[in-house]
Amino acid sequence: MNNASVEKFFDKVLTGRLTPDRQALDIIDQTLLPGTVKRINLSTKEEIWEAIKKLRVRGAPAIGVSAAYGMAVLSSRSQAADFDSFYSEFKANKEYLASSRPTAVNLFWALNRMEKTLLDNRTKSIPEIQEILYHEADKIQAEDVQISRNIGEIGFGLLKDLKKEGRPVGIETHCNAGTLATAKYGTATAPMYIALEHGWKGTDMHVYCDETRPLLQGARLTSFEVASAGITTTVQCDNMASSLMRAGLIDIIFVGCDRVARNGDFANKIGTSGLAIIAKHYGIPFYVCAPSSTIDMETPSGSQIPIEMRDPDEVTEMWYQERMAPENVNVYNPAFDVTDHSLITGMITEKGLCTAPFEDAFRKIGL
Amino acid sequence: MNNASVEKFFDKVLTGRLTPDRQALDIIDQTLLPGTVKRINLSTKEEIWEAIKKLRVRGAPAIGVSAAYGMAVLSSRSQAADFDSFYSEFKANKEYLASSRPTAVNLFWALNRMEKTLLDNRTKSIPEIQEILYHEADKIQAEDVQISRNIGEIGFGLLKDLKKEGRPVGIETHCNAGTLATAKYGTATAPMYIALEHGWKGTDMHVYCDETRPLLQGARLTSFEVASAGITTTVQCDNMASSLMRAGLIDIIFVGCDRVARNGDFANKIGTSGLAIIAKHYGIPFYVCAPSSTIDMETPSGSQIPIEMRDPDEVTEMWYQERMAPENVNVYNPAFDVTDHSLITGMITEKGLCTAPFEDAFRKIGL
Repeated sequence: MNNASVEKFFDKVLTGRLTPDRQALDIIDQTLLPGTVKRINLSTKEEIWEAIKKLRVRGAPAIGVSAAYGMAVLSSRSQAADFDSFYSEFKANKEYLASSRPTAVNLFWALNRMEKTLLDNRTKSIPEIQEILYHEADKIQAEDVQISRNIGEIGFGLLKDLKKEGRPVGIETHCNAGTLATAKYGTATAPMYIALEHGWKGTDMHVYCDETRPLLQGARLTSFEVASAGITTTVQCDNMASSLMRAGLIDIIFVGCDRVARNGDFANKIGTSGLAIIAKHYGIPFYVCAPSSTIDMETPSGSQIPIEMRDPDEVTEMWYQERMAPENVNVYNPAFDVTDHSLITGMITEKGLCTAPFEDAFRKIGL
Repeated sequence: MNNASVEKFFDKVLTGRLTPDRQALDIIDQTLLPGTVKRINLSTKEEIWEAIKKLRVRGAPAIGVSAAYGMAVLSSRSQAADFDSFYSEFKANKEYLASSRPTAVNLFWALNRMEKTLLDNRTKSIPEIQEILYHEADKIQAEDVQISRNIGEIGFGLLKDLKKEGRPVGIETHCNAGTLATAKYGTATAPMYIALEHGWKGTDMHVYCDETRPLLQGARLTSFEVASAGITTTVQCDNMASSLMRAGLIDIIFVGCDRVARNGDFANKIGTSGLAIIAKHYGIPFYVCAPSSTIDMETPSGSQIPIEMRDPDEVTEMWYQERMAPENVNVYNPAFDVTDHSLITGMITEKGLCTAPFEDAFRKIGL
């Protein structure tokens, strides 16, 4: 694959970017995938709020970038005559956007960083500050792209070692830690897209996407973006991983992560820990793609990571034509699970590949 | 629970039995579960054929019993004046019913056994043969009930050992190897129902049913029948097993099986082998409930068991309001997987509990 076609792919699926006139956010509406591929422009605060609320844009880095660009767009329209009224408009917009997804840590992080940038430049003119806010949003995006690119380069090194003549490298992934969740390369998908940029063909890899019950992010989102990039793609139910590995089809596993503890235990989408256990049984390398910002040295182990329990309807009703379990049964629906560090071959951060013992490795990269 | 309420439960969910006047089959329509509980009577050969074809009755033993009773009902209506015309009607009905599900081995087994019974009694009068056919169908049913009861008693012994004051025994199961698939107790469910017959309360157990993608037999069927029996029941996605076990909620696992090889490897519904690997990781006992008829001493190991690959639409479309994966991706959809014998704590047959080395254990019970 040449870089032009890789860029064409990103042009189709990128989220959280500005329109060329910088007057609107330009996102792919993820709620319509995989059936309908539709890009939409968001130019009012209500449109941006609704898109985050309704998960038209999702994934921590993608939400952060979108919120930052959103604040830049809204601030650029201000008619305020002085700093105080400009800042007071900014704060109102910030609070409004923050209310779109009250549990999204990266949303607040991005909004706070934009506010700090504004305050750090309070002595400048309003047009200057408006330009600085655009610049800061660009920086937030560029930093995420760079983190993913670094992770992808390390992961690509692993893929190169697995390449054999005459058959594609079999890669399994879980949930969506891809372009659709970040500013460009994703985390778990970064090794594959970087491989394309290095000239690999889509047929040099075969990506197996766990459908990822209950919300089906693997079937709906990951398989869509990986196939759109021209990579050979298969979807399977989560319970088929063992069958795939026994058949010799999987050479390596890449997953994303939500939070990593000091000892290397990590939380990720429900199902990740089972996948890691099965991979260990079959001797298949299991890598976690983890921006260093997700590594929390204050949390000693996975047991201290709280796990959100979600609505039973996601399991029994959400996707089905009719309710798929009796009314009188309980439903167990944790959003995440914790994978023990002993199951991890390596943790790929933007600062380098970490292996056990993880605490030492994390300290070596400056955490 | 007292035996009267256990029998009331079975009266609700049993399949493959006769109406009191013996003029029709009386089944629960499994295609309507779990939303609608409806029993239907099948009195014509077309109705019986359609019920097997459309999976209104499913599960190897249940299909066998239904086909046997079906042949008895149809034969009882014969107006034939002599044996030859009686037998020729029988053969036409048998061939017709056999065409309802051409891959169901137990269907042919039951139909052939009914034919052999008829031929063994060819010197008797037609009314006598008609009565003998009813009797043979009763025997087929009773034998299946006895097999399940024996398996259940052995499994109940294991449950008793796990019982602790103040908390229910946590049992995980996969797919449906229950009442709905057999003549009465099921195989994987038999230990639980036998426990009720021995006086356990429904709250003495907590059964966790894997939803069992792609066809959702666990969510739709097993959770329905177990909850109907008054047992505390939870449904979870297949990828949540590791989370349940890590949380200490699972004490034992019972699964059914489709075919067992001489070395103890066995094929069962897709997802079983992953569950066994995860159970081994957490040190949780994993038992296979296997009528000895499923143990094939001619097959050396699981590698020789062929695995059926099924329609991609089951994964991407069957249950959903809209297609849940892009059109241009492959789908991996094996019906079964093979679990290695090294992962099995024990195999419960109606002739006794078998443990490793399995070949020796199978020979000891006369295989």
